[in-house]
Amino acid sequence: MKFTIEGKEGKARAGEIQTAHGSIPTPIFMPVGTVASVKGVHQSELEEDTKAPIILGNTYHLYLRPGMEILEQAGGLHQFMSWSSNILTDSGGYQVYSLADNRKITEEGVKFKSHIDGSTHFFTPESVMDIQRRIGADIIMAFDECTPYPCDWDYAEKSMEMTHRWAHRCIEGLEKSPVRYGFEQAFFPIVQGSVYPDLRERSARFIADLDAPGNAIGGLSVGEPAEEMYAMTEVVCAILPEEKPRYLMGVGTPANLLENIARGIDMFDCVMPTRNARNGMLFTAEGTINIKNKKWENDFSPLDENGYSYVDTLYTKAYLRHLFAANEFLGKQIATLHNLGFYLWLVRTARARILAGDFYDWKDELVQKLNRRR
Amino acid sequence: MKFTIEGKEGKARAGEIQTAHGSIPTPIFMPVGTVASVKGVHQSELEEDTKAPIILGNTYHLYLRPGMEILEQAGGLHQFMSWSSNILTDSGGYQVYSLADNRKITEEGVKFKSHIDGSTHFFTPESVMDIQRRIGADIIMAFDECTPYPCDWDYAEKSMEMTHRWAHRCIEGLEKSPVRYGFEQAFFPIVQGSVYPDLRERSARFIADLDAPGNAIGGLSVGEPAEEMYAMTEVVCAILPEEKPRYLMGVGTPANLLENIARGIDMFDCVMPTRNARNGMLFTAEGTINIKNKKWENDFSPLDENGYSYVDTLYTKAYLRHLFAANEFLGKQIATLHNLGFYLWLVRTARARILAGDFYDWKDELVQKLNRRR
Ligand SMILES: [Zn+2]
Ligand SMILES: [Zn+2]
Repeated sequence: MKFTIEGKEGKARAGEIQTAHGSIPTPIFMPVGTVASVKGVHQSELEEDTKAPIILGNTYHLYLRPGMEILEQAGGLHQFMSWSSNILTDSGGYQVYSLADNRKITEEGVKFKSHIDGSTHFFTPESVMDIQRRIGADIIMAFDECTPYPCDWDYAEKSMEMTHRWAHRCIEGLEKSPVRYGFEQAFFPIVQGSVYPDLRERSARFIADLDAPGNAIGGLSVGEPAEEMYAMTEVVCAILPEEKPRYLMGVGTPANLLENIARGIDMFDCVMPTRNARNGMLFTAEGTINIKNKKWENDFSPLDENGYSYVDTLYTKAYLRHLFAANEFLGKQIATLHNLGFYLWLVRTARARILAGDFYDWKDELVQKLNRRR
Repeated sequence: MKFTIEGKEGKARAGEIQTAHGSIPTPIFMPVGTVASVKGVHQSELEEDTKAPIILGNTYHLYLRPGMEILEQAGGLHQFMSWSSNILTDSGGYQVYSLADNRKITEEGVKFKSHIDGSTHFFTPESVMDIQRRIGADIIMAFDECTPYPCDWDYAEKSMEMTHRWAHRCIEGLEKSPVRYGFEQAFFPIVQGSVYPDLRERSARFIADLDAPGNAIGGLSVGEPAEEMYAMTEVVCAILPEEKPRYLMGVGTPANLLENIARGIDMFDCVMPTRNARNGMLFTAEGTINIKNKKWENDFSPLDENGYSYVDTLYTKAYLRHLFAANEFLGKQIATLHNLGFYLWLVRTARARILAGDFYDWKDELVQKLNRRR
């Protein structure tokens, strides 16, 4: 993996990641394709319409279904799902943490019960690295503990220290588990430390010292106020090396993306554009729309005159409202394409603005509007 | 509407229907777009991938949702759903007949309860013609009574006679309700008569005498054996005028299509390719596939090497099986595109074979395989 910074404005960076599966302009947003599918979206639409150069797969979900045997027989996830651009897999740390009562975390690893059939499984840093080798994404993530919010300092510190020990075990595990499909996989370790600046600093220093090809920030967007998230991003970005991409995991709203880009983040993922789309919520540059509202019933204006996706100018608000009212799945498909189109437009435009040197003005103006309800 | 027969082989015909919204090569299969959406398929996919020149909308469903007011404000169904090719609307006769206990048929019309909110509505031949004017399809259907199967001769005769009286009322109703959107709408009356050759003959003569631009056969594919359906088609096609398109409503399997084309039918519609797709059933030239079966779990061959839709060669059987196992909606989307692609290929190829003069040989060979389970 190669990362080049092409331009900077303040702490914001415009760059490019290059892997065996192509180029990723940064800042970038990665649509979430949980079990080898971005829900309701064809691979061809992701590639040609939303122009996503990278998607995210969830190790926890892929491990359970279709499972390692089938993924390996297919020749890895790219082949299995016919996706020729980039893939990043998370480590399952966040999902097993979300299982609440159905998992037990020890120094050795995490024992958990499948949400599908209740069967028991055990993830260790080593096994998760092996699993990610078998899945075969371009960028793979360390196995960490994602602390909840709120989380007291003592627990956050203990957990962070374990995440650090696990990061070493991940690296050793990767050395023992060779790449399976003939191309390099870039490993990103994860900064933890909850909302405590002192812990985040310590963690960022530790993670930076691992000298991995890229670095991630985890444990945010778990319920803390946005200002706390931004504060942590600032602390961590001040320490993580400039010349490597910085990935803020699980974030977030369009405003969250812009504020974190302003603080030096290069990569994002979140289920929000896809999940909210399925509930009828559209993100636009003028604020959010609940397309289920009766007020759109006879609004025959285009979905979004800005045209982030081809659906925006092809279909009207009244039509999309009707599809949701009639519970037609095409409504979810259209809303998902719109939201992903908007998110990808947002990061592309952020990049162009950074290169043009007027990112902050644009960001400040846009953020005012993004959280409105239309 | 203009209909041209370009070639014939035995009773089978290859032709072309021309309307204000373009050309429809016949024989043709019309995907069902119940409430202004072919479930799980983008309009662009219908047009560019399955290459469907016409889709069907259901008057009953559209009348309830989005309702006449919104459809009229939109400028008709084409505008509302952004579909620039042809549309045919049924009359709602079949749907209200399906409501069983929630409808009452009298000479005046049908009183029924909405399946959505239980509200009471009254359809008459005149009101349904007015509704279809407001929906604005290119081809609109008479309001008829669709008899169940089995149905005794006396009821079938009484019902058929009422359908005939209603056909007159439809024509008079259309004269009083002007076209709304500046283009001609072709009215097709419907032959009834259950599975009784004498009634079908009488009905076909009556309907033929109306001298409408096209004619339809209703009340079949309601549970009768295929041989009875074919026998009725033969009786009716012998009487309906050669120079007008013949539409067999609600039919059917791929083999049903071919056998009825062989008997002189030009147009078909059925929910089978779309509904069965959502249940994981694929139609292929070698028989049907239940993609949910474990046997496809690690079959990495293309969905269908014949490539009726782009999904057929892009995705593998193992991937589609996984999407159904994980209950990912993309599975239903892919299966639907495949099945529609196959149905449209089937009628396109039938047409080419009729023009080439070897339709019957091809049909007999293919029908042997179509009903197999793979
Ligand atoms: Zn998120
Ligand atoms: Zn049918």
